Amino acid sequence: MITITLEDVRDAAARLVGVAHRTPVLRSRTLDAMVGAEIHLKAENLQRAGAFKFRGAYNALSRLSPGQRAGGVAAFSSGNHAQALALAAREFGTTAVILMPADTPASKRAAAEGYGAEIITYDRYTADRAALGAALAAERGLPLIPPYEHPDVIAGQGTAALELLEETGELGALLVPAGGGGLLAGSATAAKGLHPGIRMIGVEPEAGDDTRRSLVAGRRVGISVPRTIADGQGADIPGELTFSINRRLVDEIALVTDDEIRAAMRFAFERMRVVMEPSGASPLAALMAGRIERLPPRVGLIISGGNIDAARFAELVCPDHEATTVG
Amino acid sequence: MITITLEDVRDAAARLVGVAHRTPVLRSRTLDAMVGAEIHLKAENLQRAGAFKFRGAYNALSRLSPGQRAGGVAAFSSGNHAQALALAAREFGTTAVILMPADTPASKRAAAEGYGAEIITYDRYTADRAALGAALAAERGLPLIPPYEHPDVIAGQGTAALELLEETGELGALLVPAGGGGLLAGSATAAKGLHPGIRMIGVEPEAGDDTRRSLVAGRRVGISVPRTIADGQGADIPGELTFSINRRLVDEIALVTDDEIRAAMRFAFERMRVVMEPSGASPLAALMAGRIERLPPRVGLIISGGNIDAARFAELVCPDHEATTVG
Repeated sequence: MITITLEDVRDAAARLVGVAHRTPVLRSRTLDAMVGAEIHLKAENLQRAGAFKFRGAYNALSRLSPGQRAGGVAAFSSGNHAQALALAAREFGTTAVILMPADTPASKRAAAEGYGAEIITYDRYTADRAALGAALAAERGLPLIPPYEHPDVIAGQGTAALELLEETGELGALLVPAGGGGLLAGSATAAKGLHPGIRMIGVEPEAGDDTRRSLVAGRRVGISVPRTIADGQGADIPGELTFSINRRLVDEIALVTDDEIRAAMRFAFERMRVVMEPSGASPLAALMAGRIERLPPRVGLIISGGNIDAARFAELVCPDHEATTVG
Repeated sequence: MITITLEDVRDAAARLVGVAHRTPVLRSRTLDAMVGAEIHLKAENLQRAGAFKFRGAYNALSRLSPGQRAGGVAAFSSGNHAQALALAAREFGTTAVILMPADTPASKRAAAEGYGAEIITYDRYTADRAALGAALAAERGLPLIPPYEHPDVIAGQGTAALELLEETGELGALLVPAGGGGLLAGSATAAKGLHPGIRMIGVEPEAGDDTRRSLVAGRRVGISVPRTIADGQGADIPGELTFSINRRLVDEIALVTDDEIRAAMRFAFERMRVVMEPSGASPLAALMAGRIERLPPRVGLIISGGNIDAARFAELVCPDHEATTVG
């Protein structure tokens, strides 16, 4: 069985110095007053390529030999891992070929292409992306860097929580979005490694509660592909590796509705002046909607990403605005 | 003649420790590649109350005696100074009464009220706000804290540039939005005090180029009230005090169109994941539109604020979206 330790996260952090941004920890006294606790928000939406994903992708690439990565790397991703891997590959002077769902937001696809990646699309409601990804990698003879089922990816993702806790000291709870479970597993490894008493809370959209169901059942439970605005949390079953970590280290899962996510995105925009994509706003949504019982006095959360184009934001957050064809 | 020195800015900075956020300096390699220089963006949109204005308002209040501020303070403002003063007054356990233009964006008015301020409105196209403000302060017997014509306000505003330059070291140029000229004067005082060779560049909307005209003429030139989306840069004549500083310390003014500002706001949203209000985006707009000749290799700019509601943002930045009445 593969285990990931606090030391692995620390090693990843050392590799990321000067490469990943050390993102700011945001505060909002308005938010604190609303929820009745001190909230420390680790702004991974301000990370390079707009999400925490760059940490894991870069860490995984750094662990390949120059020869292994010289011909390129392959990946499958619902969006942010694609951008992250494309950028990380460019940093190492190589390229990425990436399978993306056909309904990926245009800005995410354009950004990955902007970093030099080759994009191949598939239908995420019918195809098995892991199998397609493995076939692609085999066909081209490239190393496959999956979005979460990889120890170096998970260790890299844990570095955001490590930085947060270095800055804030001990916190009563840490809220982290749960998709495939990589950010949650890495964060839990870092946080429980530093402060065993911290309450680790994953946050999922109600329509995509595979991690919650799996934790309740004590085994990985699959659901139908969730239809939610939180496109970064569209996993239908936890990863094997991520779940083996999360079942040990995660204390609870909070669920949020799409409307609660929209309200959090609007608050982030208007009162914190930052852009959160729907998945990135789910921990804030859980706090604002009162989804966490017995909230401790000092709480951290990770804003996982901010990749959303302005038109999609307007559509989601300003429902009194409607697309019209001009001229 | 009143002069403001680097020492005044340093003193203000000392008063703001633990009260104002030390805002992050953002970087975007995508932006650097676009403009061909290293751009360091001081994110005052992430300041408390969403703009640099809190620095000056708090510094000015801190220089009043407890007796002077006990009964409240008065101000006039096109928006961000109102929120800032409302918040600063609350920090000192007192209240603010504020004259705001009737067409102030709803979110700015609501935020000032949320901090406990009393709001009185006037028509900014017909009334003389400085005279109205003076009359209000006299009638109620309150100290008036103007938005820029005040040495303690200007010294406070200079602390953002001071922090930026402490973090980046010497820069070839610093771009700052010019409205009434307080941020520009404070920034120029700090920047030229630290690095006499730095190129100080003010940025104004084309429709509101009173500072540029005044610098060219060598005296304060008034224009008709500008109609621009940059509502924080709606001054029709530079302040006396601010102009006396800026004519000494500012090297040039760059002009930007409303469309260039919209493009910068969209870039900030989609590629930097932060919210810039139109005025706050004008230095970025000047860079993106190629408005600065012979750009030096390392450039700083101040994002002056991020107060814009989501609906207004959608209206400005997503022109294919149009308000519709729902249900």
